Amino acid sequence: MNAPDKLAQFITLTREPLPASKKIYVQGSRADVRVPMREIMQSNGEAVTVYDTSGPYTDSAALIDVRQGLAPLRQGWVEGRGDTEPYTGRAPFALDDGLKSGETDALAVLRAQAAGLQRTPRRAKAGANVSQMHYARKGIITPEMEFVALRENQKQAWMESYLGNAEREQRLAGNSFGANIPKLMTPEFVCDEVARGRAIIPANINHPEVEPMAIGRNFLVKINANIGNSAVTSSIEEEVEKLVWSIRWGADTVMDLSTGKNIHTTRDWILRNSPVPIGTVPIYQALEKVGGVAEDLSWDIFRDTLIEQAEQGVDYFTVHAGVRLPFIHLTANRVTGIVSRGGSIMAKWCIAHHQENFIYTHFDEMTEILKAYDVSYSLGDGLRPGSGADANDEAQFAELRTLGELTQKAWQQDVQVMIEGPGHVPLHMVQANMTEQLKHCHEAPFYTLGPLTTDIAPGYDHITSGIGAAMIGWFGTAMLCYVTPKEHLGLPDREDVKTGIITYKIAAHVADVAKGHPGVRARDDALSKARFEFRWMDQFNLSLDPDTARNFHDETLPKDSAKVAHFCSMCGPKFCSMKITQEVREYAKTKGLSEESALNEGMESMSEAFKRAGGEIYIPIAKA
Amino acid sequence: MNAPDKLAQFITLTREPLPASKKIYVQGSRADVRVPMREIMQSNGEAVTVYDTSGPYTDSAALIDVRQGLAPLRQGWVEGRGDTEPYTGRAPFALDDGLKSGETDALAVLRAQAAGLQRTPRRAKAGANVSQMHYARKGIITPEMEFVALRENQKQAWMESYLGNAEREQRLAGNSFGANIPKLMTPEFVCDEVARGRAIIPANINHPEVEPMAIGRNFLVKINANIGNSAVTSSIEEEVEKLVWSIRWGADTVMDLSTGKNIHTTRDWILRNSPVPIGTVPIYQALEKVGGVAEDLSWDIFRDTLIEQAEQGVDYFTVHAGVRLPFIHLTANRVTGIVSRGGSIMAKWCIAHHQENFIYTHFDEMTEILKAYDVSYSLGDGLRPGSGADANDEAQFAELRTLGELTQKAWQQDVQVMIEGPGHVPLHMVQANMTEQLKHCHEAPFYTLGPLTTDIAPGYDHITSGIGAAMIGWFGTAMLCYVTPKEHLGLPDREDVKTGIITYKIAAHVADVAKGHPGVRARDDALSKARFEFRWMDQFNLSLDPDTARNFHDETLPKDSAKVAHFCSMCGPKFCSMKITQEVREYAKTKGLSEESALNEGMESMSEAFKRAGGEIYIPIAKA
Repeated sequence: MNAPDKLAQFITLTREPLPASKKIYVQGSRADVRVPMREIMQSNGEAVTVYDTSGPYTDSAALIDVRQGLAPLRQGWVEGRGDTEPYTGRAPFALDDGLKSGETDALAVLRAQAAGLQRTPRRAKAGANVSQMHYARKGIITPEMEFVALRENQKQAWMESYLGNAEREQRLAGNSFGANIPKLMTPEFVCDEVARGRAIIPANINHPEVEPMAIGRNFLVKINANIGNSAVTSSIEEEVEKLVWSIRWGADTVMDLSTGKNIHTTRDWILRNSPVPIGTVPIYQALEKVGGVAEDLSWDIFRDTLIEQAEQGVDYFTVHAGVRLPFIHLTANRVTGIVSRGGSIMAKWCIAHHQENFIYTHFDEMTEILKAYDVSYSLGDGLRPGSGADANDEAQFAELRTLGELTQKAWQQDVQVMIEGPGHVPLHMVQANMTEQLKHCHEAPFYTLGPLTTDIAPGYDHITSGIGAAMIGWFGTAMLCYVTPKEHLGLPDREDVKTGIITYKIAAHVADVAKGHPGVRARDDALSKARFEFRWMDQFNLSLDPDTARNFHDETLPKDSAKVAHFCSMCGPKFCSMKITQEVREYAKTKGLSEESALNEGMESMSEAFKRAGGEIYIPIAKA
Repeated sequence: MNAPDKLAQFITLTREPLPASKKIYVQGSRADVRVPMREIMQSNGEAVTVYDTSGPYTDSAALIDVRQGLAPLRQGWVEGRGDTEPYTGRAPFALDDGLKSGETDALAVLRAQAAGLQRTPRRAKAGANVSQMHYARKGIITPEMEFVALRENQKQAWMESYLGNAEREQRLAGNSFGANIPKLMTPEFVCDEVARGRAIIPANINHPEVEPMAIGRNFLVKINANIGNSAVTSSIEEEVEKLVWSIRWGADTVMDLSTGKNIHTTRDWILRNSPVPIGTVPIYQALEKVGGVAEDLSWDIFRDTLIEQAEQGVDYFTVHAGVRLPFIHLTANRVTGIVSRGGSIMAKWCIAHHQENFIYTHFDEMTEILKAYDVSYSLGDGLRPGSGADANDEAQFAELRTLGELTQKAWQQDVQVMIEGPGHVPLHMVQANMTEQLKHCHEAPFYTLGPLTTDIAPGYDHITSGIGAAMIGWFGTAMLCYVTPKEHLGLPDREDVKTGIITYKIAAHVADVAKGHPGVRARDDALSKARFEFRWMDQFNLSLDPDTARNFHDETLPKDSAKVAHFCSMCGPKFCSMKITQEVREYAKTKGLSEESALNEGMESMSEAFKRAGGEIYIPIAKA
């Protein structure tokens, strides 16, 4: 058994489709634009179609070999544009994987694991700019943009057929706080949004496996999940399954926050097997290259790391360019100082050298690099508050204003930008974060961590932050970075990752509904209808986590027969309000009356008849 | 072994105090006003004092015999007022416990279990009104009011000493949406709030064991937990421990929603052992008395049940008086019809008889009964929406307006009132619920279930509703009724109850902080400070759930030594931002510079010195 085979046995990829679900593809204007969606079949014959981030893993027909990577969906698009060229990339070093130059055996084993995943990198031809923003500003609609438009529409026809009660739609009309969400997403609209910087499509030309998606205020709210090994625990095998697990439950992008050993190779595995954009914080790897001594960092080492990761295909970089020397003292009286890892590294470097942050001073040069691969910026908030007490302070907002300046600099080169946001913010101070960001960052997409709305519940920070995330998503944040129950306490395991993702899918969906995103409420209605009609399995299958819903039901009423019972374990048969409501409606129907007229007119005789018809109120559970 | 002994062995009451915590009592103006609080000792010698709902159970010095009940704290206060009298109460029936008249053996066993808990009921003397609102309107400050004032202040001195950074307090100043929260709570303020109906103190004269608490917009946001047996599972033994478990984690009131057999006796057990107010929905028991046939309900049976429960000591009744006949047809086109159990029962009765709701028509007579025991109204929202699609519709608001009319009728007799609210409400429609309630219900306290902000996450409805609860609490809701992860799916077990409560404690606290409740943020700051100073055990102990916080930390770094480590498992030693921040501060201090000045002036020389001092960045973990 060679090394890759040995590894493969540890990788038990989660491949089964979600219950009652199958992958469908919506065909675009060209043969190779096929947009994946998930179709959920209901027991009444109706199908519900939902946005699907899970990639080919949930497609029973897809052949997947993690040692070879996914099919390069975008390869033809990228090559077809004729503005990029393959080249001999940067030579890999042992140090890229955190190994010493002498550790040749370890390196050989490691590289063998990734042998099938090596690709010749591409970059923009001399003088070319290959960013989606550049194309958009020239009015070129790329296949990526069309893909995004179709994807965002989900299955508009289904959603519209499901809604359509005028009184209800008027009553429930959203409040988008000035966002501009079209009724039907078009490739032209996507193009316009990318051109003006209000949305990004993170899609490195060296990550052709990605299924394009957009992050922007006028699109569905997205969520990010973080994975990564760590100095303390974890392994490469776990990382790939963590990716598959994360996108199964709905992560729209994944950040690889690995540190320590094997990070270059881990990244190969993740990127080649990822249908979602991958983000990183390059300073983490740069710090490894200098043995963990922040003072020894330099622009050259950072630059080398950017190129290394851009060649591998990372779709967006978090860079802490806004942690400027003159801002650091603003954190002096904070309760929790600087809590961003990258921010504290840069702060330390600035202080040690008493020099301005080298990422800030080399920003334009860095932008040149990102432009050549279409890597997007995620401008990090290194001075974000780490406690409610530090929220919305001058350190935080000084940095935010700097990020706004840097946004304009990046846009001068047509490089895509999103802005990272806090952190820990009491509920009444959440909205100011959004309005300040909109004001200073020219509507570049906001990408926030939570925010956590209180500090007193470690172990439940998915919830303290889910509250803030729903709010700020409603106000206009384009992507929400998840927080798991282990935040502040330990490394998330598989269940924690899932809990974090589901919590954030809730927050994102709550925000979409509140914004009035067209049709997005249809899933709520479909599930509510299933609930009211006692279609238990449909209720489970339409939910964000069908497994948990079904398991919880099983705990009280384990039999299959209970899944067709016309009551639930909450109230028992005698007290089922939904059942009683249905009886009233049923009675009216048998009398050929609309329920409303039945209730309004001639009620005396009806009440007698209703009493006589009584007794058989509950449909008994079928004998198991 | 007699029956009570046999039962006792099943009751393993949770008695141990929370970690590092002890019960303290704040002395009032008279010897028998002693307000319990929980003091958490930190490793740095500082004590943090927090609001404590757990009653004598967490007091190591308290002797508790669940077969005899808790000490009757308020007995002297009630008797001392001289306006009540003991009397031979209503004779108990087998049917009260859901038994047939022939089941004498079963009844004997059951009653024996509760033998030590029987009390002679009291009621108001003829012509007297014994409600807290009545006293308040006469300007009488009761011991209950003083108790509430001291309790709400928590340990003001501690909180003030903890805050006190002017810039910070100004920056974090809350937005209470027009609430009127005093800097220091006084008995006079409590009296005024109760007098004008803006707060209630649910405290039946037959529940002398209760530690008084207030529900009102200008007080801390409270939470309610539901317990109850059910037709499908559960037992009496479980119910008492569920109560103890619920108040341990912070339930301010508990509703006993039992149905089926043994409910009268279950209520004896719960009431005599409860230091928190107990609410019920009397129609559930009334329905049992008529064999589950809603049409057979009558005012007489309902009236009998009200008296039965008032004599036992129930502190507030949920009554669905607003489910009026003319409103029922408004639910005809809803997606989920009527989802309130009580609401659907009354709707069915109204339709079957084609008569107006008998609770509505007998409202004043019912109020006479409540007045004689000081039972508070919780005016139920029987027409609350059961899905986002039905939110804020005419059925819901027509009922709300009726509840406003009934509030004024109750107040004519000085009977305390709170108003129940939804339910399922999309985020952008939450605030309208609060403003409509304030407008139509004359500032009577609002008591909401959630609201759930989306329907697509069964299994996670503590979270979908926790988001809405935090929001509506901020806007002014006085008490939040918890939702557990099992909502819509099954009966909550012990862990579900805890998860629901902690989630709602988060929501309530988030709301209190956002409202700017004086000093309430101090606990956040104390915990953040402990976090920043790597006082891990203090961080756990100050949290809402110390056990979970510690367990999560143990999962990654199980050793005791890790509890003093100056980094955590999230980032590992190299990347600890807090550690780096502390180094910067430490360096400045050793140089005799304030951090700020160190960073502003003479940085060149300092940067050299800092680099020289480097290398020893991390305090190594002590050898275990």
